[in-house]
Amino acid sequence: MQSLFNDALQEQQFKGTPTELYEPFTYILSLGGKRMRPVMLLHACEMFCGESIKALPQAIAIELFHNFTLIHDDIMDRAPLRRGLPAVHKKYNSTVAILVGDAMLLTAYKYLVKCDPQLVSPLINLFNDCGIKICEGQQLDMNFEKSNTLEIGDYLGMVELKTAYLFATALQMGAIIGGASESDAGHLFNFGKYLGISFQMKDDWLDSFGVVKKMGKQRGGDIIQNKKTFLFIKAYSIADDSTRRKLRDYFSGEHFNAEEKISDVLNIYTKLGIDEITREAMLENAELALQQLKKVSLPQQKKDLLFDLAESLFYRKE
Amino acid sequence: MQSLFNDALQEQQFKGTPTELYEPFTYILSLGGKRMRPVMLLHACEMFCGESIKALPQAIAIELFHNFTLIHDDIMDRAPLRRGLPAVHKKYNSTVAILVGDAMLLTAYKYLVKCDPQLVSPLINLFNDCGIKICEGQQLDMNFEKSNTLEIGDYLGMVELKTAYLFATALQMGAIIGGASESDAGHLFNFGKYLGISFQMKDDWLDSFGVVKKMGKQRGGDIIQNKKTFLFIKAYSIADDSTRRKLRDYFSGEHFNAEEKISDVLNIYTKLGIDEITREAMLENAELALQQLKKVSLPQQKKDLLFDLAESLFYRKE
Repeated sequence: MQSLFNDALQEQQFKGTPTELYEPFTYILSLGGKRMRPVMLLHACEMFCGESIKALPQAIAIELFHNFTLIHDDIMDRAPLRRGLPAVHKKYNSTVAILVGDAMLLTAYKYLVKCDPQLVSPLINLFNDCGIKICEGQQLDMNFEKSNTLEIGDYLGMVELKTAYLFATALQMGAIIGGASESDAGHLFNFGKYLGISFQMKDDWLDSFGVVKKMGKQRGGDIIQNKKTFLFIKAYSIADDSTRRKLRDYFSGEHFNAEEKISDVLNIYTKLGIDEITREAMLENAELALQQLKKVSLPQQKKDLLFDLAESLFYRKE
Repeated sequence: MQSLFNDALQEQQFKGTPTELYEPFTYILSLGGKRMRPVMLLHACEMFCGESIKALPQAIAIELFHNFTLIHDDIMDRAPLRRGLPAVHKKYNSTVAILVGDAMLLTAYKYLVKCDPQLVSPLINLFNDCGIKICEGQQLDMNFEKSNTLEIGDYLGMVELKTAYLFATALQMGAIIGGASESDAGHLFNFGKYLGISFQMKDDWLDSFGVVKKMGKQRGGDIIQNKKTFLFIKAYSIADDSTRRKLRDYFSGEHFNAEEKISDVLNIYTKLGIDEITREAMLENAELALQQLKKVSLPQQKKDLLFDLAESLFYRKE
């Protein structure tokens, strides 16, 4: 399914004038990635009608949308790298990156509406709502950088918006294009939501405990940026007073030696057993996701692709 | 029509959490402005069906879209003021401004699809194409800042994309919602295109020759930013060699005393009669616009509103 999607994406010529606007399209899309969201959308469609090809334009729309968020988030987060190569705002500049992101979002809509006319309105409405939720999630995430009173519930609320909604919406859209019933489309939405939460926890975990080479980004990037990840919030909630003070100091300032800060915080995480705690929480959410998938009224065999995909996300190393 | 629109816009509650994302919505929309684009859309609808109210959601969509472009353009152009008050990226910060712009574009789509289901696809397609053209125009505009070989044709191509397309599309959409024939909708599109070009020339003119108090922005902002306006390109094309050198020096560097640069360039413009030349070009395009409006197959009386609107744009002082 991934190569079906990549071939279709490759066929699209995002060319035009001025080239300054279109060259970065090709650049970011060629950075690759696992294409999880479009692949999920195609799987969901395939499950219900056996014709994933029907949903290719919407899969492209979802991938364009996702890349639009990456381009703009990287500016906002001042992230220098994306998949091991310069982020768009670093390779070009922030001005180009703002505009390319905008153009990519608009282009996503062009693909989104390439479907049965009856589906245009429902798909647009889901896509719009999802887009706005993601903006809300990104704003919350940025607010969290300045907050010291976060609980796991706040984190889950933010991640549901910022990350999980797009997984959920991609699956729901695929199901709708495949002709699923409303309740089945809803189960897939929920499957995507829990999977997305689990995925983000894994992402947080990888930033601290992943293998640097595989990730294509620096270890501890979240720590440097004072990101209130699952790891931080959990550690903060179970630490003793002096450790808590240390964490609070580190995560409310910007004038620390980066390497020392990362190493100190990782030591705290390790001492508090945050590695294992995070993995357990990931598992719990993956389990909730699979329960939703089980509810879908199709033979098990049809669901295998999504079971496998969920598993691969959980065991991913980058 | 303007107050019909303003009342409808006022009724929309762009509220939500996090407030950091939604407060700037209210801020920029409350800065006012003439609401030209939505008002044109409503007029166009009114002309054909007598019920401008039918097109209110799309008028809101066009105004949201326009404000999204203002927010992002002001970041890219490093413009400190918008309608006499701090631009969004100055009042808040660039990060918020990027995200608020994104959320506003997504919200525009929510309004756009509130129409007869049969119109969703045609309206979305027009809106998407228009949005992408505007991004292309903005990129061209930025490219022009670094170029010294521009001709009036380059300028017209850029302005058609960056400014005129939104006027044209707003009118075309209004016509379609009002039930106009394809050819009448096309005439209104062309009317909007020429009107938009004339409008931009006036905008360029106002930056150099307008009354500062009325504009709510600094005089000569375009000159400081090395914007290749109609005035600059025309002046450059008719100037003698030494004046041309002076213009080129001023418009390719950034290390000049701002006041001196503005005053020198304005003197050059005045000596070359650019004031009058620009006003003539504005008139020519306004005339082309009115010719298109005449072609619309409706009694003259129905077209009066748009005639009046075109006139008011031409005589505007801000």
